[in-house]
Amino acid sequence: MIVVKVGGSEGIDLPAVCADVAALWGKGQRLVLVHGGSHRTNQVAELLGHPPQFVTSISGYTSRRTDRETLSIFEMVYCGEVNKRIVELLQAAGANALGLSGLDGRLLEGQRKAAIKVIENGRRRVIRDDYTGTVQRVNVSLLRLLLDNGYLPVVTPPAISLEDEAINVDGDRAAAMIAAALGAETLVILSNVPGLLRDFPDEGTLIREIPRSRADEFMEHAQGRMRIKVLGATEAIDQGVGRVVFGDARIAEPVQRALAGQGTVISR
Amino acid sequence: MIVVKVGGSEGIDLPAVCADVAALWGKGQRLVLVHGGSHRTNQVAELLGHPPQFVTSISGYTSRRTDRETLSIFEMVYCGEVNKRIVELLQAAGANALGLSGLDGRLLEGQRKAAIKVIENGRRRVIRDDYTGTVQRVNVSLLRLLLDNGYLPVVTPPAISLEDEAINVDGDRAAAMIAAALGAETLVILSNVPGLLRDFPDEGTLIREIPRSRADEFMEHAQGRMRIKVLGATEAIDQGVGRVVFGDARIAEPVQRALAGQGTVISR
Repeated sequence: MIVVKVGGSEGIDLPAVCADVAALWGKGQRLVLVHGGSHRTNQVAELLGHPPQFVTSISGYTSRRTDRETLSIFEMVYCGEVNKRIVELLQAAGANALGLSGLDGRLLEGQRKAAIKVIENGRRRVIRDDYTGTVQRVNVSLLRLLLDNGYLPVVTPPAISLEDEAINVDGDRAAAMIAAALGAETLVILSNVPGLLRDFPDEGTLIREIPRSRADEFMEHAQGRMRIKVLGATEAIDQGVGRVVFGDARIAEPVQRALAGQGTVISR
Repeated sequence: MIVVKVGGSEGIDLPAVCADVAALWGKGQRLVLVHGGSHRTNQVAELLGHPPQFVTSISGYTSRRTDRETLSIFEMVYCGEVNKRIVELLQAAGANALGLSGLDGRLLEGQRKAAIKVIENGRRRVIRDDYTGTVQRVNVSLLRLLLDNGYLPVVTPPAISLEDEAINVDGDRAAAMIAAALGAETLVILSNVPGLLRDFPDEGTLIREIPRSRADEFMEHAQGRMRIKVLGATEAIDQGVGRVVFGDARIAEPVQRALAGQGTVISR
């Protein structure tokens, strides 16, 4: 079992990712595909007159400000446009894909944050109407039911809160939770860079390997999106996933190359 | 087994529909919910700078002009915003809903029209880049798999073509195909009027009953959207569905009222 996460940043070659996923699926590889849609959400939010905003938490993580209107736009793009495009591409490549959000069958369940504490212009502020949270439980029996019956699950945020609200959750960490719940041997996380970069965006500073034992020390130097990516990876490994590979989604055969170790490998 | 279709027109009370569906589901009623999203698609298409267009076929049916960009907007609204809102409402009401488009697991498969012949300003024109079609096959084993495992399927167009393209299909006729495939005893079709009206939009002209034997004669007098609704209903009945009820989605307990015969009943 492998779990593949493909991000939603600019430059990602979705047809190449889907062709590669379908090729592996055709060879009998059990897998779940998880995806994002952030760049396109930004574009659509602008067009719909509700421009994207980002907040930085006091612990230093950056996330999308998700009021109820943003959540609706988020669902349009992630669950509508992007999820169905991926399902269509996979179907055309011969894989019987089936798209699900975390709401569907309570696939991804978690706690909504009662309040988020953010830093704004150097000052602390508390936001209470944000629909964000963290995945705590994966409905693994639903994934197994679909896999056992020949369907390739294509999973996207949002998740569902314990109070039945849609909540925006980090896609990388959701993929890590899914990989852990399924006991996957590998979690592949594809984005628009070759892997984790010591000096973002300098692609010459690719880190080839991070042993789990050194990940915490690594986290201290990591910045921005890289912090949350490494956090997700360590969570996956601590819960039993064999290895996490950060690979490049702008190239041909991106999944198979990542499985061959091209990118950044985090392992036990 | 019942199939409930709720339209996407203005004025429909989605929370009331979902509360009623969840109440029936809670009492052990097996059901599939099918929905539309036309009004909201028109709004979003305007906002995204690709205004909706409608064409009238030479046989007199009106449908949405669906080029590839429209299809993408259609997926945003139907599969994203509306489908996930319904799933969230049903989950909050205690029903374990799971949303699917016709692409997912090839749930709704059909033929894409190679060309549509339309009347424009009194002249015939052929359109070849339209992504529309008709559902020919329902993946009933997928619906049964989900129902048998406690999930309430929430189904929306588009369907998938035999050449693996997303295609816009009529929601009422898709619901009729689903009801027939599942051997449903009743198909409930809810919209923003009390049922079929002899003189649309005069709600005082509600038709209470149409025996199947008189539906063809009825079709000769029907106009616009009503024609395709009656066509879908006769298709369902000819394939074994017990009865079709057109009911009002603007009132409380809309499904239970339709099941009690409030609206227009078409039966064998």
